[in-house]
Amino acid sequence: KKAAAGKVEIHGYDKDMRVGKRAAKIGAVDKAPYKLYDVVKDANMVILAMPALAIRDMMETIADMISPGCVVTDTGSTKGAIMSWAEEYLPKGVSFVGGHPMAGKELSGIDAADAALFQGTRYVIIPGANARKEATESVIDLAELLEAKPYFLDASEHDSYVAAVSHLPIIMSSALIAATTTSPSWREISKLASTGFRDVSRLASGDPVMNLDICITNGESIVHWIDQAIGELRSYRDMVAGAVDETGARKMGEAFTNVWDARERWLLRFEAGEDMDDNPTGQPELPSMRDEMMDLFVGSRMRERYQQIMSLQQDKDSRNRRPKDR
Amino acid sequence: KKAAAGKVEIHGYDKDMRVGKRAAKIGAVDKAPYKLYDVVKDANMVILAMPALAIRDMMETIADMISPGCVVTDTGSTKGAIMSWAEEYLPKGVSFVGGHPMAGKELSGIDAADAALFQGTRYVIIPGANARKEATESVIDLAELLEAKPYFLDASEHDSYVAAVSHLPIIMSSALIAATTTSPSWREISKLASTGFRDVSRLASGDPVMNLDICITNGESIVHWIDQAIGELRSYRDMVAGAVDETGARKMGEAFTNVWDARERWLLRFEAGEDMDDNPTGQPELPSMRDEMMDLFVGSRMRERYQQIMSLQQDKDSRNRRPKDR
Repeated sequence: KKAAAGKVEIHGYDKDMRVGKRAAKIGAVDKAPYKLYDVVKDANMVILAMPALAIRDMMETIADMISPGCVVTDTGSTKGAIMSWAEEYLPKGVSFVGGHPMAGKELSGIDAADAALFQGTRYVIIPGANARKEATESVIDLAELLEAKPYFLDASEHDSYVAAVSHLPIIMSSALIAATTTSPSWREISKLASTGFRDVSRLASGDPVMNLDICITNGESIVHWIDQAIGELRSYRDMVAGAVDETGARKMGEAFTNVWDARERWLLRFEAGEDMDDNPTGQPELPSMRDEMMDLFVGSRMRERYQQIMSLQQDKDSRNRRPKDR
Repeated sequence: KKAAAGKVEIHGYDKDMRVGKRAAKIGAVDKAPYKLYDVVKDANMVILAMPALAIRDMMETIADMISPGCVVTDTGSTKGAIMSWAEEYLPKGVSFVGGHPMAGKELSGIDAADAALFQGTRYVIIPGANARKEATESVIDLAELLEAKPYFLDASEHDSYVAAVSHLPIIMSSALIAATTTSPSWREISKLASTGFRDVSRLASGDPVMNLDICITNGESIVHWIDQAIGELRSYRDMVAGAVDETGARKMGEAFTNVWDARERWLLRFEAGEDMDDNPTGQPELPSMRDEMMDLFVGSRMRERYQQIMSLQQDKDSRNRRPKDR
């Protein structure tokens, strides 16, 4: 929170006193009073940055401490439950504006603080039913101060979208770790695990309490997406098992080409900080240069591979037939 | 291949002439003759770095070109099929020593060349049936020149282990991309995809031809591991659906704590470049300091969460009972 230097005064609080001390020491906050009441009572804005169920608890706790007119916002991973807790627990004079900056690290704790974490990322903003216009504007200001891009969405859209691109990846990373590390051969297997394994399993190192809260508050959408992933894995399983002839290899090759292409399209936009529909001119989604490159790199090589497999198969078939022909 | 500067002369060849030119220009090779024959005929060692099925083709092609006494090695992702192709296609006077450096990038092509790529990683070495002792030693030298750690394993062990930690992650990344990008809402969903999605899906951007070849040459082991992953995802699905009361939340919380712990243990060793059984003193696997930290960071917070959920549940139960009691 160095990003706000000079413009506002930031007071921090953590249940663990040592965290507050450390935050003040490294300059992440201006002050870290020992008592929650001292932090909250005169605040113009209170930012609740903690796992979802802890936000519920904290709302209950601060309800009597905050001054009327205060803006309360949060950074929780799910929004539906949090929006309704705000209505239930916060006093009427207080404006609640839900927030979710779409960036994170698997590292938690004050020593992972990073002033540049939110630069260029989307910052989802969901005004509560009682939120005054100025309250929403002040959360927009907060997002812009962090160089994030304010993005409006309703809570149920938010929760169903993040189930696909944030929560399903957490579950898949966790399932990868669970499947491999419980193997009786893990001690041997683990020696060959390298950067690919590290990256795909990264989200299994996220805070387990936060992950639990995500599943409790967004279970239905997550179950939907796990089912989609299981369906895809079954289809990959069948394709791998069937890649023994040219027809099977072609199906498998097309699947890998499709995901390669789909991810490259997303990644190009993501790295450029663009939307998939930032295309007001109505031109084709991506320049044809890219399609040519893709054909060069994948298409032509893949076609060559299918032909090789077909000729190998014919060799084998003719060899297998020979004994009968004699 | 800057790592070998001055010690050996490296000639490179690629089907695409432009790649050879570029490799010579950026200093990745000393020379890049246009004809494969000119590269191979007087070579003391030939390194086949291409997808598995292309290695088979290349062995057939170079069989008549290489001089007796030449050492042939490869960097293919699977080893069983490649070892048997070497016996089938290479002349008897030639020593084949299979190799697999356990490092990679999702980027392919000469411009992704990186002299430090193999530093500190394991380099699996599998001498072929006809390989002379000096041939194996020269591949060990190669690994050491790249600052990798030579590691001996038989081909079937290699293939079953990498199926778990290299090939299953490729399939899981691909399934994540397939499940999400084919959704009718992908255009909207994609806007919330961020660094977590990027990392877990990274391997879907690997070369599709290489991924196809991996599945063709290691299908049985990969199918086994996909089944394990589906089993885990089913169990996560049930845990997420069941995390509606304290018992269910406890189960889910324990699962996230277990994978968090298992990954941290692996990652600590991986980052330090140690084995899980580099522990000759017989002391406990990790210092108790770590267990204390883990309890502080996860254990105590998780216990607190279970209690919160239990008391919330009791509140709800008693509220639900009230109407009847009246």
